[in-house]
Amino acid sequence: MVGSVALDSVRTPFGKADDVLGGAATFFSYAASFFTTVRLVAVVGADFPKAHLDLLARRGVDLSGLQVTEGATFRWVGEYGYDLNEAKTLDTRLGVFADFRPELPAAFRRTPFLFLANIDPELQLDVLRKVERPRLVALDTMNFWIQGKREALRRVLAEVDALLVNDAEARMLTEEPNLVKAARKILTYGPRIVVIKRGEYGALMVNEGRFFFVPAFPLDAVFDPTGAGDTFAGGFMGALARADRLDEAALRRAIVYGSVMASFTVEDFSLDRLLRLTDREVEERFQTFQEMMRLER
Amino acid sequence: MVGSVALDSVRTPFGKADDVLGGAATFFSYAASFFTTVRLVAVVGADFPKAHLDLLARRGVDLSGLQVTEGATFRWVGEYGYDLNEAKTLDTRLGVFADFRPELPAAFRRTPFLFLANIDPELQLDVLRKVERPRLVALDTMNFWIQGKREALRRVLAEVDALLVNDAEARMLTEEPNLVKAARKILTYGPRIVVIKRGEYGALMVNEGRFFFVPAFPLDAVFDPTGAGDTFAGGFMGALARADRLDEAALRRAIVYGSVMASFTVEDFSLDRLLRLTDREVEERFQTFQEMMRLER
Repeated sequence: MVGSVALDSVRTPFGKADDVLGGAATFFSYAASFFTTVRLVAVVGADFPKAHLDLLARRGVDLSGLQVTEGATFRWVGEYGYDLNEAKTLDTRLGVFADFRPELPAAFRRTPFLFLANIDPELQLDVLRKVERPRLVALDTMNFWIQGKREALRRVLAEVDALLVNDAEARMLTEEPNLVKAARKILTYGPRIVVIKRGEYGALMVNEGRFFFVPAFPLDAVFDPTGAGDTFAGGFMGALARADRLDEAALRRAIVYGSVMASFTVEDFSLDRLLRLTDREVEERFQTFQEMMRLER
Repeated sequence: MVGSVALDSVRTPFGKADDVLGGAATFFSYAASFFTTVRLVAVVGADFPKAHLDLLARRGVDLSGLQVTEGATFRWVGEYGYDLNEAKTLDTRLGVFADFRPELPAAFRRTPFLFLANIDPELQLDVLRKVERPRLVALDTMNFWIQGKREALRRVLAEVDALLVNDAEARMLTEEPNLVKAARKILTYGPRIVVIKRGEYGALMVNEGRFFFVPAFPLDAVFDPTGAGDTFAGGFMGALARADRLDEAALRRAIVYGSVMASFTVEDFSLDRLLRLTDREVEERFQTFQEMMRLER
């Protein structure tokens, strides 16, 4: 996976956390590590606490693609209101992330599952050029690139297998308010799999014209939604890698594992809930999802 | 079922309809008629077109509990914007509905499945007193009664088996923004089954502490959402009556049949889509729902 490692400061109605471990690459890698071995490509500044790297290393994450350069680590300051669906960004300091050029160790060039997290689509395309064609390439993006680099984004979209976005991004990308039409339109851009994340309303996948819906886990409280989308992607890609299959049944199970990982993430700040998470809890919550969706008995 | 029969005038971004057949009792009965024999208790004015009654009679709906009195039929004028989740009421003329006192023909006093649609909770309680205890009593209500007759509503809630409301009503009734907590709180009011309708996000049911989620059918366009909730209830109650079972599996199938009927209703104005609907289409869409939710293969 290629993406950002960051230090987040977050305020929610339930508390605050300062300079805690964040970034799409971090959330993704930690979540995916419950299923497979993750290779991370990212950049941090010299100020980045070694303890954070140790957390990932202990999960078996291969950090040989992590650049440590002079300067400050990417910092994000955000706030959520009682409607936890959307973050309000208060401050973004890109630091070393501003000049990030992904560098792939030779051993990374053959990787069966590649996740291109939310970075400049030109860099996403550059990474894709540097690897042997993986079995599955999935992509995330955000409003900033949809508005500012639409053409480059469409170029990379034409070459990936799956797009994972939230509902607002799907609507913005396609200029189509109806989510069903938006999903179908994205299929014409290149990806054969579209996953749309809908926060408290769960997620939907369209694969070869077939829809699949998963609810969000019914939580009494969402504590901090930061990282939910990235851990969803980590659970999804990790579960596919573990299954080593890409058929409809494997994709559906992977969507549910993504939902499982996201549901844990939002129970606490940063990676705090995932740090306490066990494999057994993951499988138990997967079974609970299965039970909540089961029509036949 | 006990509820309203109305003449609706509706404007949506896609068109308008004037003085068309509407009302909770109408939508519910027509939808339930695909599954079972419906007995309707309602009131209309002398101005009510006989052709509308014929539509229901042709579906086998027993109209012996329909009062036809001097005066004007209940009229509702509403409008939907591009966000079709909530109607804006432009005008309400209660007419004969203002003095509606449900009268039950003797043959109606033993009825296994009773649906109390959105009317004054004191009238709902009155109906409940007049019948031998049915196997299942389900109730709908709205913001008007939650705010204006909370105490009477709580009295009737204490005596019913199931509450069917939308998400905004569930939050208002419990004064609890989190829908999971709201659902659990409603269970302490009396009902053992809570169904929360979430429009384009589907519905959820809590029964004996277990959650079940059904998505909304992925439609390219929602033409007119009027009657969606009432046909959902009609499909739900009708399917339960047909199955003649109240176990978890039967309830889950009934929730999906409710979603099926609602998904057809919103495809056209008034009952127009249901008038063209066949049993085969109902079963086919049920199977499509099953396919969209299936995790195991």
